Amino acid sequence: MHALSINTGRLMGRIQQLGTIGRDAEGRLARTACSDADKAGRDMLAGWITDAGLELAVDRIGNIFGLWKTAGNARHAPVLVGSHIDTVIDAGIFDGCYGVLAGLEVIQTLREAGFVPPRPIAVAAFTNEEGVRYAPDMMGSLVHAGGLPLEQALATVGTDGSILGAELERIGYAGTEEPGFLQPHAYIELHIEQGPILEREEISVGAVENLQGISWHRITIDGEANHAGTTPMSMRRDAGHAAAAISVFVHDRAAASTGGTVATVGCIRFEPNAINVIPSRATMTVDLRDPDATNLAAEEGKLAGYLETLSAQTGVTIATEQLARFDPVIFDAGIVACVEAAAAKRGLSTRRMTSGAGHDAQMMARITAAGMIFVPSRAGVSHNPGEFTEDAELAAGANVLLDVVMDRVNT
Amino acid sequence: MHALSINTGRLMGRIQQLGTIGRDAEGRLARTACSDADKAGRDMLAGWITDAGLELAVDRIGNIFGLWKTAGNARHAPVLVGSHIDTVIDAGIFDGCYGVLAGLEVIQTLREAGFVPPRPIAVAAFTNEEGVRYAPDMMGSLVHAGGLPLEQALATVGTDGSILGAELERIGYAGTEEPGFLQPHAYIELHIEQGPILEREEISVGAVENLQGISWHRITIDGEANHAGTTPMSMRRDAGHAAAAISVFVHDRAAASTGGTVATVGCIRFEPNAINVIPSRATMTVDLRDPDATNLAAEEGKLAGYLETLSAQTGVTIATEQLARFDPVIFDAGIVACVEAAAAKRGLSTRRMTSGAGHDAQMMARITAAGMIFVPSRAGVSHNPGEFTEDAELAAGANVLLDVVMDRVNT
Repeated sequence: MHALSINTGRLMGRIQQLGTIGRDAEGRLARTACSDADKAGRDMLAGWITDAGLELAVDRIGNIFGLWKTAGNARHAPVLVGSHIDTVIDAGIFDGCYGVLAGLEVIQTLREAGFVPPRPIAVAAFTNEEGVRYAPDMMGSLVHAGGLPLEQALATVGTDGSILGAELERIGYAGTEEPGFLQPHAYIELHIEQGPILEREEISVGAVENLQGISWHRITIDGEANHAGTTPMSMRRDAGHAAAAISVFVHDRAAASTGGTVATVGCIRFEPNAINVIPSRATMTVDLRDPDATNLAAEEGKLAGYLETLSAQTGVTIATEQLARFDPVIFDAGIVACVEAAAAKRGLSTRRMTSGAGHDAQMMARITAAGMIFVPSRAGVSHNPGEFTEDAELAAGANVLLDVVMDRVNT
Repeated sequence: MHALSINTGRLMGRIQQLGTIGRDAEGRLARTACSDADKAGRDMLAGWITDAGLELAVDRIGNIFGLWKTAGNARHAPVLVGSHIDTVIDAGIFDGCYGVLAGLEVIQTLREAGFVPPRPIAVAAFTNEEGVRYAPDMMGSLVHAGGLPLEQALATVGTDGSILGAELERIGYAGTEEPGFLQPHAYIELHIEQGPILEREEISVGAVENLQGISWHRITIDGEANHAGTTPMSMRRDAGHAAAAISVFVHDRAAASTGGTVATVGCIRFEPNAINVIPSRATMTVDLRDPDATNLAAEEGKLAGYLETLSAQTGVTIATEQLARFDPVIFDAGIVACVEAAAAKRGLSTRRMTSGAGHDAQMMARITAAGMIFVPSRAGVSHNPGEFTEDAELAAGANVLLDVVMDRVNT
């Protein structure tokens, strides 16, 4: 049997074309949420949705939907595919856009092939996934899933002082549908990995089984400034050394973990930051992630216990502030198995994996069976113009999405 | 026998009086080398030297000497006591000034008591010990000891663009004596400890037997910036973690040392310094000190070896730059024993100790038998308005200096 496949040239052409929208004079790409560039990208997408014969719908938080429903299936919950088309500043062209345009491509391919879907199929582009201009990120899908009240989201003040709701009105994407109007039967998101695993293991398709929980901390350590020469080691309260010890502690625990814990100390600052003065104060961040909720809580507990011990042993005082906290998300086991099976059937290598980044799928998992498909990212680079995936890899991922959608409309 | 003692009131009065010179509108003290404030302090000191009946001499690098010599002893090398009267910015009143004014007080006390010294006795105030305005620090004593050519020192460009030689001329302290004109029989420097040991151990007098060697390094670590969520621990090249590991390594070695090694990481910086990005670059400083030359070299070797191992194990590249290097100084054993004996005779508790800070005595040790006497510093504070030592402790130290000088003129 000859398997149905998407139109690779059309998909690649659209990714490239959308990638031209929002370039500055130096050629840098930025389509932050509800900006003029975002409007231009939305207009382009809306045109493609309409041209493909789909029904265009926009909800009050600006999420864009393209629906393919028939008289025979309209009373059933749709299978939804999607992602986002807003970007970071100085972005690549694949993050988000790939999932939206591949979703549109899958629907067009099925329509053109005369496929008769037992359920509607829809594609979504969620508002403000990146969260660069307005916090929190993944806002459109969060509002859709009922996790953030619409009025609160619309009142969000941006980094530039703008109000999200007013900007949505201005660019013409304050829609009329109530958020959540579309209650999907399943949600599948195709995305570049934004990490190095698939490339380094030479695997084509990632069947994403879960998404890491995140625990962010700011740690402030107060010791005592003293002369680096005249103060014996035993009389020091060295805030800088305590920060280093914490960094090594979280790193070594994560490195020894078999459960996928990762730990990063991304920011650090010493005061007074002089070569011959023992630091009186150190501030640092700890980014802890784990795909398992129990493990994440256990790692947080180990860190808290270590801080207590360290404080007691060294005489520094340690204050911690939780900057962010998201529980891990487990994706639908049926979708994960379906992704694996679809990849295998096409002769594509596949592995189960964890998403280290946040995605709209984690919000949709609150209200429906959700899953994700990853394709390789060269060198794991993302949020950067160097973001790159080969056409053949992109096409392979889109064909797996096609197969998964065809399967899910029948479940 | 009733021991001779210095005039405590006169000494304290002069310390306080000199401490009024160089205050700004907010009351902060600064007499950086060759400034107007330094000139005013020098003028005050020169007046006291002359009033005490001593011969005033100034050399070409601006070092000030007060000499007490007699027809009977003029052909012998003098016993020299001294320190400096320049200060850091926002200084205390004791650092340096105590040693100079106690030296003057010792000579005055001996003269008034009718003491007949077999050798001349002299007091020195060396130019630019602090090195705040002109580098290197301890410049006047270094030039005196022949360690830096006079012309090079005079050509030094200050942090404010000024030329040291021109500033010496301007303030009237470009003297006529050739540096090194006075070749002492011995040099003794009385100083506040600038560290916490004497206070915490409740000891009155430190017999300084050596002065730490210093080894300063700037270490630059290059790794790879990556997403804190999507990059497995095994695929990271985390420059920040490497910096933390180095910090813990040098700290733990020093803390375990029985030989007085101290290690400080005073400065650190991460790039890009973002909470969810693995640091691509970390820069840090390491300040290593040890009173023993062999130990210091061994610690430097251990650090270099660790950096190689760490680089090989973690894939980061590590570059080091030596910012400063001074060998340790061993003070004259006879003077150390004499300080101990003098303190004991006055019923003062004493201990042998290491100087963690640099002092003019380390330069004078190049050309003569040199030693130092320490008195307690409250909380180890120095280079700060909080610098403080009790009058009784200052007087006790000056009386020990008196006894040591009386002893050394006879050896």
